[in-house]
Amino acid sequence: MMKLYGYWRSSASYRVRIALAMKEIKVAHIPVNLRTGEQKEADYFARNPQGYLPALELEDGTILTQSLAILDYLDAIESEPPLLPGDPVLRAKILAASLGIAADIHPIQNLSVLKYIRAEHGCDDEAVTTWVRHWIAKGFNALEEIAQTTDSVFLYTDRPAFFEICLIPQVYNARRFGIDMAAFPRLSAMDEACRILPAFVKAAPENQSDAVPVHT
Amino acid sequence: MMKLYGYWRSSASYRVRIALAMKEIKVAHIPVNLRTGEQKEADYFARNPQGYLPALELEDGTILTQSLAILDYLDAIESEPPLLPGDPVLRAKILAASLGIAADIHPIQNLSVLKYIRAEHGCDDEAVTTWVRHWIAKGFNALEEIAQTTDSVFLYTDRPAFFEICLIPQVYNARRFGIDMAAFPRLSAMDEACRILPAFVKAAPENQSDAVPVHT
Repeated sequence: MMKLYGYWRSSASYRVRIALAMKEIKVAHIPVNLRTGEQKEADYFARNPQGYLPALELEDGTILTQSLAILDYLDAIESEPPLLPGDPVLRAKILAASLGIAADIHPIQNLSVLKYIRAEHGCDDEAVTTWVRHWIAKGFNALEEIAQTTDSVFLYTDRPAFFEICLIPQVYNARRFGIDMAAFPRLSAMDEACRILPAFVKAAPENQSDAVPVHT
Repeated sequence: MMKLYGYWRSSASYRVRIALAMKEIKVAHIPVNLRTGEQKEADYFARNPQGYLPALELEDGTILTQSLAILDYLDAIESEPPLLPGDPVLRAKILAASLGIAADIHPIQNLSVLKYIRAEHGCDDEAVTTWVRHWIAKGFNALEEIAQTTDSVFLYTDRPAFFEICLIPQVYNARRFGIDMAAFPRLSAMDEACRILPAFVKAAPENQSDAVPVHT
Protein backbone atom coordinates (compact mmCIF):
# COMPACT_ATOMS: atom_id res chain seq x y z
CA MET A 1 0.00 0.00 0.00
CA MET A 2 1.20 3.53 -0.75
CA LYS A 3 1.90 5.88 2.14
CA LEU A 4 0.90 9.52 2.30
CA TYR A 5 2.99 11.73 4.55
CA GLY A 6 0.79 14.66 5.40
CA TYR A 7 -0.61 17.00 7.99
CA TRP A 8 -4.29 17.49 8.67
CA ARG A 9 -4.34 21.27 8.08
CA SER A 10 -1.79 21.41 5.26
CA SER A 11 -3.57 22.65 2.12
CA ALA A 12 -1.32 20.63 -0.15
CA SER A 13 -1.90 17.43 1.86
CA TYR A 14 -5.64 18.11 1.80
CA ARG A 15 -5.56 18.35 -2.02
CA VAL A 16 -3.97 14.93 -2.33
CA ARG A 17 -6.38 13.42 0.19
CA ILE A 18 -9.33 14.64 -1.90
CA ALA A 19 -7.93 13.13 -5.09
CA LEU A 20 -7.20 9.82 -3.36
CA ALA A 21 -10.73 9.71 -1.97
CA MET A 22 -12.31 10.64 -5.33
CA LYS A 23 -10.40 7.83 -7.02
CA GLU A 24 -10.97 5.46 -4.08
CA ILE A 25 -7.26 4.73 -3.78
CA LYS A 26 -6.39 3.46 -0.31
CA VAL A 27 -3.16 4.66 1.30
CA ALA A 28 -1.61 4.53 4.76
CA HIS A 29 -1.68 8.03 6.24
CA ILE A 30 1.52 8.98 8.07
CA PRO A 31 1.04 12.23 10.01
CA VAL A 32 3.99 14.66 10.03
CA ASN A 33 3.48 17.48 12.48
CA LEU A 34 4.18 20.78 10.71
CA ARG A 35 3.68 22.80 13.87
CA THR A 36 6.45 21.02 15.76
CA GLY A 37 8.71 21.06 12.68
CA GLU A 38 8.73 17.29 12.12
CA GLN A 39 9.06 17.95 8.39
CA LYS A 40 12.56 19.31 9.05
CA GLU A 41 13.69 16.23 10.89
CA ALA A 42 16.17 13.89 9.23
CA ASP A 43 13.70 11.08 8.74
CA TYR A 44 11.30 13.14 6.66
CA PHE A 45 13.99 15.30 5.07
CA ALA A 46 15.63 12.20 3.62
CA ARG A 47 12.35 11.51 1.84
CA ASN A 48 11.81 15.09 0.65
CA PRO A 49 14.77 17.51 0.60
CA GLN A 50 12.35 20.41 0.17
CA GLY A 51 10.93 19.62 3.60
CA TYR A 52 7.41 20.40 2.44
CA LEU A 53 4.32 18.24 2.74
CA PRO A 54 2.88 16.06 1.35
CA ALA A 55 4.97 13.18 0.02
CA LEU A 56 3.54 10.02 -1.48
CA GLU A 57 5.65 6.90 -1.03
CA LEU A 58 4.94 4.29 -3.67
CA GLU A 59 5.08 0.58 -2.91
CA ASP A 60 8.61 0.32 -4.32
CA GLY A 61 9.80 3.11 -2.03
CA THR A 62 9.80 5.85 -4.71
CA ILE A 63 8.88 9.21 -3.21
CA LEU A 64 6.70 11.67 -5.09
CA THR A 65 6.40 15.22 -3.84
CA GLN A 66 4.50 18.40 -4.75
CA SER A 67 0.74 18.01 -4.57
CA LEU A 68 0.07 19.00 -8.19
CA ALA A 69 2.61 16.48 -9.47
CA ILE A 70 1.04 13.83 -7.24
CA LEU A 71 -2.43 14.67 -8.64
CA ASP A 72 -1.01 14.24 -12.15
CA TYR A 73 0.40 10.84 -11.11
CA LEU A 74 -2.86 9.70 -9.55
CA ASP A 75 -4.74 10.71 -12.70
CA ALA A 76 -2.30 8.60 -14.74
CA ILE A 77 -2.60 5.45 -12.62
CA GLU A 78 -6.36 5.64 -12.03
CA SER A 79 -8.31 7.38 -14.75
CA GLU A 80 -11.73 7.46 -13.02
CA PRO A 81 -12.94 10.00 -12.26
CA PRO A 82 -10.62 12.12 -14.43
CA LEU A 83 -9.15 15.18 -12.72
CA LEU A 84 -8.27 16.81 -16.03
CA PRO A 85 -10.05 16.55 -19.40
CA GLY A 86 -8.36 15.45 -22.62
CA ASP A 87 -9.15 18.63 -24.54
CA PRO A 88 -5.91 20.66 -24.55
CA VAL A 89 -7.57 24.08 -24.19
CA LEU A 90 -9.94 23.12 -21.38
CA ARG A 91 -7.13 21.25 -19.66
CA ALA A 92 -4.87 24.32 -19.86
CA LYS A 93 -7.63 26.56 -18.49
CA ILE A 94 -8.26 24.27 -15.51
CA LEU A 95 -4.53 23.98 -14.86
CA ALA A 96 -4.11 27.75 -15.08
CA ALA A 97 -6.82 28.37 -12.50
CA SER A 98 -5.32 25.67 -10.27
CA LEU A 99 -1.93 27.37 -10.49
CA GLY A 100 -3.69 30.61 -9.58
CA ILE A 101 -4.06 28.94 -6.19
CA ALA A 102 -1.17 26.48 -5.98
CA ALA A 103 1.47 28.89 -7.29
CA ASP A 104 0.08 32.37 -6.76
CA ILE A 105 -1.63 32.15 -3.37
CA HIS A 106 -0.47 29.17 -1.36
CA PRO A 107 3.35 29.48 -1.51
CA ILE A 108 3.25 33.15 -0.49
CA GLN A 109 1.37 32.31 2.70
CA ASN A 110 3.27 29.11 3.38
CA LEU A 111 4.37 28.58 6.99
CA SER A 112 8.02 29.19 6.06
CA VAL A 113 7.16 32.58 4.55
CA LEU A 114 5.09 33.58 7.57
CA LYS A 115 7.98 32.62 9.84
CA TYR A 116 10.34 34.72 7.73
CA ILE A 117 8.22 37.88 7.82
CA ARG A 118 7.83 37.50 11.59
CA ALA A 119 11.56 37.01 12.18
CA GLU A 120 13.04 39.32 9.55
CA HIS A 121 10.39 41.97 8.91
CA GLY A 122 9.18 42.19 12.52
CA CYS A 123 5.61 41.30 11.59
CA ASP A 124 3.23 40.68 14.49
CA ASP A 125 0.07 38.55 14.35
CA GLU A 126 -1.90 41.39 12.82
CA ALA A 127 0.64 42.07 10.08
CA VAL A 128 0.84 38.35 9.32
CA THR A 129 -2.95 38.14 9.04
CA THR A 130 -2.99 41.22 6.78
CA TRP A 131 -0.36 39.58 4.58
CA VAL A 132 -2.25 36.29 4.29
CA ARG A 133 -5.56 38.02 3.59
CA HIS A 134 -3.98 40.25 0.96
CA TRP A 135 -2.63 37.36 -1.14
CA ILE A 136 -5.73 35.20 -0.76
CA ALA A 137 -8.03 38.10 -1.72
CA LYS A 138 -5.83 39.06 -4.69
CA GLY A 139 -5.90 35.50 -5.98
CA PHE A 140 -9.59 34.91 -5.26
CA ASN A 141 -10.58 38.19 -6.95
CA ALA A 142 -9.04 37.03 -10.21
CA LEU A 143 -10.51 33.54 -9.90
CA GLU A 144 -13.97 34.87 -9.03
CA GLU A 145 -13.80 37.08 -12.12
CA ILE A 146 -13.02 34.05 -14.28
CA ALA A 147 -15.73 32.00 -12.53
CA GLN A 148 -18.32 34.71 -13.26
CA THR A 149 -17.79 34.08 -16.97
CA THR A 150 -18.57 30.35 -16.86
CA ASP A 151 -21.97 28.73 -16.37
CA SER A 152 -20.95 25.24 -15.26
CA VAL A 153 -21.60 24.08 -11.68
CA PHE A 154 -17.88 24.13 -10.98
CA LEU A 155 -15.28 26.30 -12.67
CA TYR A 156 -15.38 24.69 -16.10
CA THR A 157 -17.04 21.36 -15.38
CA ASP A 158 -20.13 19.88 -13.75
CA ARG A 159 -18.07 17.50 -11.63
CA PRO A 160 -15.31 18.61 -9.28
CA ALA A 161 -11.96 18.43 -11.01
CA PHE A 162 -8.35 19.52 -10.57
CA PHE A 163 -9.31 23.13 -9.82
CA GLU A 164 -11.82 22.34 -7.10
CA ILE A 165 -9.26 20.04 -5.46
CA CYS A 166 -7.07 23.13 -5.10
CA LEU A 167 -9.92 25.52 -4.27
CA ILE A 168 -11.58 23.81 -1.32
CA PRO A 169 -8.41 23.58 0.83
CA GLN A 170 -7.66 27.23 0.00
CA VAL A 171 -11.16 28.29 1.08
CA TYR A 172 -10.70 26.32 4.30
CA ASN A 173 -7.50 28.27 4.83
CA ALA A 174 -9.17 31.58 3.93
CA ARG A 175 -11.81 31.00 6.62
CA ARG A 176 -9.10 30.34 9.20
CA PHE A 177 -7.74 33.78 8.43
CA GLY A 178 -11.13 35.43 8.66
CA ILE A 179 -11.70 36.17 4.98
CA ASP A 180 -15.31 37.01 4.21
CA MET A 181 -16.16 34.56 1.44
CA ALA A 182 -19.34 36.54 0.61
CA ALA A 183 -17.11 38.62 -1.67
CA PHE A 184 -16.61 35.53 -3.82
CA PRO A 185 -20.09 34.13 -4.52
CA ARG A 186 -19.17 31.69 -7.30
CA LEU A 187 -16.16 30.32 -5.40
CA SER A 188 -18.32 29.99 -2.28
CA ALA A 189 -21.00 28.10 -4.18
CA MET A 190 -18.39 25.66 -5.52
CA ASP A 191 -17.03 25.21 -2.01
CA GLU A 192 -20.49 24.45 -0.61
CA ALA A 193 -21.28 22.02 -3.40
CA CYS A 194 -18.01 20.16 -2.94
CA ARG A 195 -17.84 19.98 0.82
CA ILE A 196 -20.89 17.73 1.12
CA LEU A 197 -19.50 15.16 -1.33
CA PRO A 198 -18.17 11.98 0.33
CA ALA A 199 -14.62 12.32 -1.02
CA PHE A 200 -14.35 15.87 0.31
CA VAL A 201 -15.82 14.89 3.68
CA LYS A 202 -13.34 12.04 4.00
CA ALA A 203 -10.43 14.35 3.13
CA ALA A 204 -11.48 17.23 5.39
CA PRO A 205 -8.90 18.34 7.97
CA GLU A 206 -11.19 17.73 10.93
CA ASN A 207 -11.69 14.12 9.88
CA GLN A 208 -7.99 13.19 9.96
CA SER A 209 -6.47 11.08 12.72
CA ASP A 210 -3.94 13.79 13.62
CA ALA A 211 -6.55 16.58 13.87
CA VAL A 212 -6.58 18.42 17.17
CA PRO A 213 -8.99 21.12 18.35
CA VAL A 214 -7.45 24.55 17.73
CA HIS A 215 -8.59 28.12 17.80
CA THR A 216 -6.50 29.69 15.06
CA MET B 1 -0.85 33.01 -35.80
CA MET B 2 -0.92 32.79 -32.00
CA LYS B 3 0.17 35.82 -29.99
CA LEU B 4 2.36 35.70 -26.90
CA TYR B 5 1.95 38.61 -24.50
CA GLY B 6 5.19 38.73 -22.54
CA TYR B 7 8.03 40.76 -21.15
CA TRP B 8 11.68 40.14 -21.94
CA ARG B 9 12.83 39.66 -18.34
CA SER B 10 9.74 37.90 -17.00
CA SER B 11 10.75 34.37 -15.95
CA ALA B 12 7.36 32.96 -16.83
CA SER B 13 7.40 34.57 -20.30
CA TYR B 14 10.94 33.24 -20.81
CA ARG B 15 9.74 29.68 -20.02
CA VAL B 16 7.06 29.84 -22.70
CA ARG B 17 9.48 31.35 -25.23
CA ILE B 18 11.86 28.40 -24.70
CA ALA B 19 9.08 25.85 -25.22
CA LEU B 20 7.85 27.62 -28.37
CA ALA B 21 11.38 27.72 -29.76
CA MET B 22 12.04 24.05 -28.91
CA LYS B 23 8.86 23.05 -30.71
CA GLU B 24 9.47 25.54 -33.54
CA ILE B 25 6.03 27.09 -33.09
CA LYS B 26 5.92 30.60 -34.50
CA VAL B 27 3.97 33.26 -32.60
CA ALA B 28 3.64 37.04 -32.73
CA HIS B 29 5.36 38.50 -29.69
CA ILE B 30 3.43 41.34 -28.04
CA PRO B 31 5.57 43.09 -25.41
CA VAL B 32 3.81 44.18 -22.21
CA ASN B 33 6.01 46.39 -20.08
CA LEU B 34 5.95 45.04 -16.51
CA ARG B 35 8.08 47.90 -15.21
CA THR B 36 5.61 50.57 -16.29
CA GLY B 37 2.65 48.47 -15.13
CA GLU B 38 1.18 47.84 -18.56
CA GLN B 39 -0.06 44.45 -17.31
CA LYS B 40 -2.48 46.33 -15.02
CA GLU B 41 -3.97 48.36 -17.84
CA ALA B 42 -7.48 47.58 -19.03
CA ASP B 43 -6.42 46.20 -22.37
CA TYR B 44 -4.24 43.48 -20.87
CA PHE B 45 -6.37 42.95 -17.77
CA ALA B 46 -9.34 42.09 -19.96
CA ARG B 47 -7.24 39.27 -21.38
CA ASN B 48 -5.91 38.07 -18.03
CA PRO B 49 -7.72 39.10 -14.81
CA GLN B 50 -4.71 37.95 -12.80
CA GLY B 51 -2.65 40.66 -14.45
CA TYR B 52 0.37 38.38 -14.67
CA LEU B 53 2.46 37.54 -17.71
CA PRO B 54 2.54 35.68 -20.01
CA ALA B 55 -0.71 35.07 -21.87
CA LEU B 56 -1.00 33.09 -25.07
CA GLU B 57 -3.78 34.16 -27.41
CA LEU B 58 -4.90 31.37 -29.70
CA GLU B 59 -6.04 32.03 -33.25
CA ASP B 60 -9.71 31.91 -32.19
CA GLY B 61 -9.08 34.54 -29.51
CA THR B 62 -8.99 32.10 -26.55
CA ILE B 63 -6.54 33.29 -23.90
CA LEU B 64 -4.36 30.84 -22.02
CA THR B 65 -2.49 31.99 -18.94
CA GLN B 66 0.00 30.58 -16.44
CA SER B 67 3.24 29.45 -18.01
CA LEU B 68 3.04 25.85 -16.78
CA ALA B 69 -0.47 25.45 -18.16
CA ILE B 70 0.72 26.93 -21.46
CA LEU B 71 3.62 24.44 -21.54
CA ASP B 72 1.12 21.63 -21.01
CA TYR B 73 -0.96 22.99 -23.90
CA LEU B 74 2.02 23.31 -26.22
CA ASP B 75 3.05 19.74 -25.42
CA ALA B 76 -0.48 18.61 -26.34
CA ILE B 77 -0.63 20.41 -29.69
CA GLU B 78 2.95 19.69 -30.78
CA SER B 79 4.42 16.51 -29.37
CA GLU B 80 8.01 16.96 -30.60
CA PRO B 81 10.20 17.33 -28.70
CA PRO B 82 8.20 16.13 -25.68
CA LEU B 83 8.49 18.33 -22.60
CA LEU B 84 7.22 15.56 -20.32
CA PRO B 85 7.63 11.79 -20.65
CA GLY B 86 4.77 9.30 -20.71
CA ASP B 87 5.96 7.32 -17.70
CA PRO B 88 3.78 8.49 -14.76
CA VAL B 89 6.54 8.33 -12.13
CA LEU B 90 9.19 10.14 -14.18
CA ARG B 91 6.60 12.66 -15.29
CA ALA B 92 5.59 13.34 -11.67
CA LYS B 93 9.23 13.73 -10.64
CA ILE B 94 9.93 16.25 -13.39
CA LEU B 95 6.73 18.15 -12.60
CA ALA B 96 7.58 18.18 -8.89
CA ALA B 97 11.01 19.69 -9.51
CA SER B 98 9.46 22.22 -11.90
CA LEU B 99 6.97 23.24 -9.22
CA GLY B 100 9.93 23.56 -6.85
CA ILE B 101 10.74 26.59 -9.02
CA ALA B 102 7.42 27.70 -10.46
CA ALA B 103 5.49 27.44 -7.18
CA ASP B 104 8.07 27.56 -4.42
CA ILE B 105 10.57 30.14 -5.64
CA HIS B 106 9.16 32.34 -8.36
CA PRO B 107 5.84 33.53 -6.85
CA ILE B 108 7.51 34.55 -3.59
CA GLN B 109 9.87 36.88 -5.41
CA ASN B 110 7.32 38.09 -7.92
CA LEU B 111 7.29 41.83 -8.58
CA SER B 112 3.97 42.24 -6.73
CA VAL B 113 5.41 40.61 -3.59
CA LEU B 114 8.56 42.76 -3.74
CA LYS B 115 6.38 45.88 -4.05
CA TYR B 116 4.34 44.75 -1.04
CA ILE B 117 7.33 44.20 1.25
CA ARG B 118 8.73 47.59 0.23
CA ALA B 119 5.45 49.40 0.86
CA GLU B 120 4.10 47.50 3.87
CA HIS B 121 7.15 46.07 5.61
CA GLY B 122 9.44 49.05 4.94
CA CYS B 123 12.00 46.92 3.10
CA ASP B 124 14.81 48.81 1.39
CA ASP B 125 16.84 47.56 -1.60
CA GLU B 126 19.07 45.51 0.67
CA ALA B 127 16.18 43.82 2.49
CA VAL B 128 14.50 43.08 -0.83
CA THR B 129 17.70 41.52 -2.18
CA THR B 130 18.09 39.46 1.01
CA TRP B 131 14.49 38.24 0.61
CA VAL B 132 14.95 37.24 -3.02
CA ARG B 133 18.25 35.50 -2.35
CA HIS B 134 16.79 33.63 0.61
CA TRP B 135 13.96 32.04 -1.38
CA ILE B 136 16.07 31.27 -4.43
CA ALA B 137 18.80 29.67 -2.29
CA LYS B 138 16.26 27.66 -0.28
CA GLY B 139 14.70 26.33 -3.46
CA PHE B 140 17.98 25.72 -5.27
CA ASN B 141 19.46 23.89 -2.27
CA ALA B 142 16.67 21.32 -2.41
CA LEU B 143 16.86 21.01 -6.20
CA GLU B 144 20.66 20.67 -6.15
CA GLU B 145 20.30 17.89 -3.59
CA ILE B 146 17.89 16.06 -5.88
CA ALA B 147 20.13 16.72 -8.91
CA GLN B 148 23.12 15.22 -7.08
CA THR B 149 21.27 11.90 -6.95
CA THR B 150 20.72 11.62 -10.73
CA ASP B 151 23.34 10.87 -13.39
CA SER B 152 21.57 12.17 -16.48
CA VAL B 153 22.88 15.27 -18.29
CA PHE B 154 19.83 17.22 -17.17
CA LEU B 155 17.74 16.57 -14.08
CA TYR B 156 16.18 13.27 -15.13
CA THR B 157 16.74 13.30 -18.89
CA ASP B 158 19.48 13.71 -21.48
CA ARG B 159 17.52 16.35 -23.37
CA PRO B 160 16.19 19.53 -21.81
CA ALA B 161 12.60 19.06 -20.68
CA PHE B 162 9.93 20.74 -18.59
CA PHE B 163 12.25 21.21 -15.61
CA GLU B 164 15.07 22.89 -17.52
CA ILE B 165 12.53 25.24 -19.12
CA CYS B 166 11.76 26.41 -15.57
CA LEU B 167 15.36 26.29 -14.34
CA ILE B 168 17.17 28.44 -16.88
CA PRO B 169 14.95 31.54 -16.40
CA GLN B 170 15.28 31.11 -12.63
CA VAL B 171 19.08 30.95 -12.88
CA TYR B 172 19.02 34.09 -15.04
CA ASN B 173 17.01 35.73 -12.29
CA ALA B 174 19.34 34.41 -9.57
CA ARG B 175 22.33 36.00 -11.33
CA ARG B 176 20.51 39.36 -11.46
CA PHE B 177 20.24 39.19 -7.69
CA GLY B 178 23.90 38.28 -7.25
CA ILE B 179 23.49 34.66 -6.19
CA ASP B 180 26.74 32.71 -6.43
CA MET B 181 25.79 29.75 -8.61
CA ALA B 182 29.01 27.94 -7.64
CA ALA B 183 27.03 26.63 -4.66
CA PHE B 184 24.86 24.68 -7.11
CA PRO B 185 27.24 22.80 -9.40
CA ARG B 186 24.71 20.44 -11.01
CA LEU B 187 22.18 23.20 -11.63
CA SER B 188 24.96 25.39 -13.06
CA ALA B 189 26.09 22.62 -15.41
CA MET B 190 22.51 22.21 -16.68
CA ASP B 191 22.26 25.95 -17.17
CA GLU B 192 25.49 26.06 -19.17
CA ALA B 193 24.49 23.09 -21.30
CA CYS B 194 21.09 24.60 -22.09
CA ARG B 195 22.06 28.17 -22.73
CA ILE B 196 24.09 27.34 -25.85
CA LEU B 197 21.21 25.47 -27.49
CA PRO B 198 19.46 27.40 -30.30
CA ALA B 199 16.01 27.36 -28.66
CA PHE B 200 17.40 28.79 -25.42
CA VAL B 201 19.43 31.41 -27.30
CA LYS B 202 16.35 32.49 -29.24
CA ALA B 203 14.29 32.74 -26.02
CA ALA B 204 16.93 34.58 -23.97
CA PRO B 205 15.83 37.91 -22.49
CA GLU B 206 18.58 39.90 -24.20
CA ASN B 207 17.47 38.64 -27.60
CA GLN B 208 13.91 39.96 -27.33
CA SER B 209 12.68 43.02 -29.23
CA ASP B 210 11.65 44.80 -26.01
CA ALA B 211 15.00 44.21 -24.26
CA VAL B 212 16.71 47.34 -23.01
CA PRO B 213 20.16 47.67 -21.42
CA VAL B 214 19.80 47.72 -17.65
CA HIS B 215 22.07 47.40 -14.67
CA THR B 216 19.88 45.66 -12.12
